Amino acid sequence: MDENIKALFRPRSIAVIGASEKPGKIGYAVMKNLVEYGYEGKIYPVNIKGVEIEINGRKFKSYKSILDVPDEVDMAVIVVPAKFVPQVVEDCGKKGVKVLPIISSGFGELGEEGKKVEEQLVETAHRYGMRILGPNIFGVVYTPEKLNATFGPTDVMPGSLALISQSGALGIALMGWTILEKVGLSAVVSIGNKSDIDDADLLEFFKEDENTKAILIYMEGVKDGRKFMKTAKEVSMEKPIIIIKAGRSERGAKAAASHTGSLAGADSIYTAAFKQSGVLRALTIGEAFDWARTLSNLPEPEGENVVILTNGGGIGVMATDAAEEEGLKLYDNLDDLKVFAKHMPPFGSYKNPVDLTGMADGKAYEGAVRDALANPNMHAVAVLYCQTAVLDPRDLAKIVIREYNESGRKKPLVVAIVGGIEAKEAIDMLNEEGIPAYPEPERAIKSLSALYRWSRWKATQKRE
Amino acid sequence: MDENIKALFRPRSIAVIGASEKPGKIGYAVMKNLVEYGYEGKIYPVNIKGVEIEINGRKFKSYKSILDVPDEVDMAVIVVPAKFVPQVVEDCGKKGVKVLPIISSGFGELGEEGKKVEEQLVETAHRYGMRILGPNIFGVVYTPEKLNATFGPTDVMPGSLALISQSGALGIALMGWTILEKVGLSAVVSIGNKSDIDDADLLEFFKEDENTKAILIYMEGVKDGRKFMKTAKEVSMEKPIIIIKAGRSERGAKAAASHTGSLAGADSIYTAAFKQSGVLRALTIGEAFDWARTLSNLPEPEGENVVILTNGGGIGVMATDAAEEEGLKLYDNLDDLKVFAKHMPPFGSYKNPVDLTGMADGKAYEGAVRDALANPNMHAVAVLYCQTAVLDPRDLAKIVIREYNESGRKKPLVVAIVGGIEAKEAIDMLNEEGIPAYPEPERAIKSLSALYRWSRWKATQKRE
Repeated sequence: MDENIKALFRPRSIAVIGASEKPGKIGYAVMKNLVEYGYEGKIYPVNIKGVEIEINGRKFKSYKSILDVPDEVDMAVIVVPAKFVPQVVEDCGKKGVKVLPIISSGFGELGEEGKKVEEQLVETAHRYGMRILGPNIFGVVYTPEKLNATFGPTDVMPGSLALISQSGALGIALMGWTILEKVGLSAVVSIGNKSDIDDADLLEFFKEDENTKAILIYMEGVKDGRKFMKTAKEVSMEKPIIIIKAGRSERGAKAAASHTGSLAGADSIYTAAFKQSGVLRALTIGEAFDWARTLSNLPEPEGENVVILTNGGGIGVMATDAAEEEGLKLYDNLDDLKVFAKHMPPFGSYKNPVDLTGMADGKAYEGAVRDALANPNMHAVAVLYCQTAVLDPRDLAKIVIREYNESGRKKPLVVAIVGGIEAKEAIDMLNEEGIPAYPEPERAIKSLSALYRWSRWKATQKRE
Repeated sequence: MDENIKALFRPRSIAVIGASEKPGKIGYAVMKNLVEYGYEGKIYPVNIKGVEIEINGRKFKSYKSILDVPDEVDMAVIVVPAKFVPQVVEDCGKKGVKVLPIISSGFGELGEEGKKVEEQLVETAHRYGMRILGPNIFGVVYTPEKLNATFGPTDVMPGSLALISQSGALGIALMGWTILEKVGLSAVVSIGNKSDIDDADLLEFFKEDENTKAILIYMEGVKDGRKFMKTAKEVSMEKPIIIIKAGRSERGAKAAASHTGSLAGADSIYTAAFKQSGVLRALTIGEAFDWARTLSNLPEPEGENVVILTNGGGIGVMATDAAEEEGLKLYDNLDDLKVFAKHMPPFGSYKNPVDLTGMADGKAYEGAVRDALANPNMHAVAVLYCQTAVLDPRDLAKIVIREYNESGRKKPLVVAIVGGIEAKEAIDMLNEEGIPAYPEPERAIKSLSALYRWSRWKATQKRE
């Protein structure tokens, strides 16, 4: 493990160079997020005027230079204007800092001249044994250490998904999305211009990181394709990687080229490379997070037999359509499936999709979910619920949470609840407990299918 | 216009036969919804014991029989147990009621015997010149008349989409969904067993109904395919019809057959019939409502030139990918597009997708949206926004609402806002104003594309 990369996620102390006492400034926002998100290491604001900075009543003395800080500093978050950054990097080197997230912009993204400055920064950093994240980023989050060194949203929900974004603006928007949609994160990393630390470096960290179970990357392009592929393939053998990379269409690729300077027309190369490396390419943001919910929370299935439990014939059929289209196999052994007959009225159907009927109450779901989780021939379970007056969706959520926990969470289980406000609350409750829940049956099935795809890819790799 | 069908949506007076004073009973829930949703006609509860029914402090005397009601009754909602229904229908006939939504279940859905009883009910009704909706339904909503004669959710958001559901359970769940997702409805009709009034009858009403701009049907099967197709095609020339019909896959169709008794394997026939009739078939609930938002709110485009405005290169590329895949044409005339240059910094791009850059503030969006709406060569506009600190998404929403209203809403405009809680609020604000807004760029583009598909189908029909 690269000690510098480790310091990016588990710094024992942090300096914020360019910290500000003024709300609205990035140098204030970073301080505020560090404090409010509960970082427990030492925080040293560095401000050229040496102002006092107050965050929620907690007062911080600031230092005029990083060299004045009377302690070791693992990570220095840099937010000063671009022209001051070279000197700051030099000072950080002298101080013995390990890693430098450079939030400041005004470098490579502006053109050739900026790119040269960037290269010099990296040279300086490497001379002192430091690594640079960025520049042109919004920072880094690592929830197990209560570290939020960004100027993005504060209240990131802890979980097992690591999110890497090349775009700053979209990355912050996606952080907000995860909070709204209850997607639990282990980490968020803004990699911006990737002058030094790149996707591959981070993948290597997340591969070993016990708090991360899946990785989602928003990518505009990679510089060293060979390195990325090699690492991605190695990591995919351990943990699933989901990538959103826009620019699939000819015109989209052209627009991407003018936006990021990456090569147009190379999209088919990415597609092939992703496929070979076991990377799951999502076509939209929504799809990526749908998959990520399942991939970052659930164990791999031990076989192909999927069971669908439903109280609505219609949503059961929708899920069945999706399962067939995705190549999932619905379990067919009626001797085994007959166990569900006792949880339904006579006009129910224990054929898969198992229709508990609109009369299904808490007891019916409890029994059916328990039986499905207990039977070793049933390898994955999709619980569907169409909101009725018989059973409050929030009570259904409680039942599923309890049964899944008591079963030891040994096989994948996804949930879809169709309905109104109570259904949304039930979905949130499940997601907060790390049980992937969706407002539509197809989204649950397609997410389960992504888990199967990754699992099957691994199996073919092992056979080869 | 069939007077009986009209009475289903604009009854001057309503009897609830089987009304109850006990919360938790369907006969109470229907009364409660009628009162709470603000129905302004007369409401006559009918209860065999003649109990007094109190709803929110308002007291209703109830009648022991519909024949005792001292006034004309246009619509009688029937919630008594199945065995009493034949007598009640007979009484309604004598009373001169026009239309009978029969909520009660226990008829055709149970088998042949129930089907016979159902046929007799219809015979009786027709003898008296009445029409039957159902049985086995959850009721009917018509928002322009503040009519909510269902036992589903109360606070349906008024709008221009008519929703028809063959499934009761899913229909209620979808009503809840529309409230949660701010989809405005003109009507909700549960058609259940379709013993008498069917999809075609309702389509004919909605075709003429000035409060309805689009129709969404959840369908499990049709009895008279020829009649449905003929009507659907006529209606599609005036208003778009979106249909969700599960059972596309072989196994899904089999499951549907066991659930609804409809023929398996006939799905390809539906596909062909829908296509020929101009019906837009949505593959999922989410897709159907996405399209419905746009189709029920926006005018048709007067040409093919779509303009995408964005503050994020990434989401601009995603939208471009979706537009290409959907066959939408991004406007290319740089002489016209140059008008956007004045709303962006020098590193922005006025090539379509128009990148206002992450620095885009309210003024930039205001100017760009106004210019796009004003230029007659630009026929449709997609406004994308990636949440940044520069502009609160709710302020963006206000700007778009104002500009779109001031332009007279003459061309289609869709919005996508990617972000967290404030983004969700902004999306809700726009949807409440009838401006289709989505949390992902692709969903906005695909919905615009559905509008184009319908519009192009109409054009080909007119040419033939």
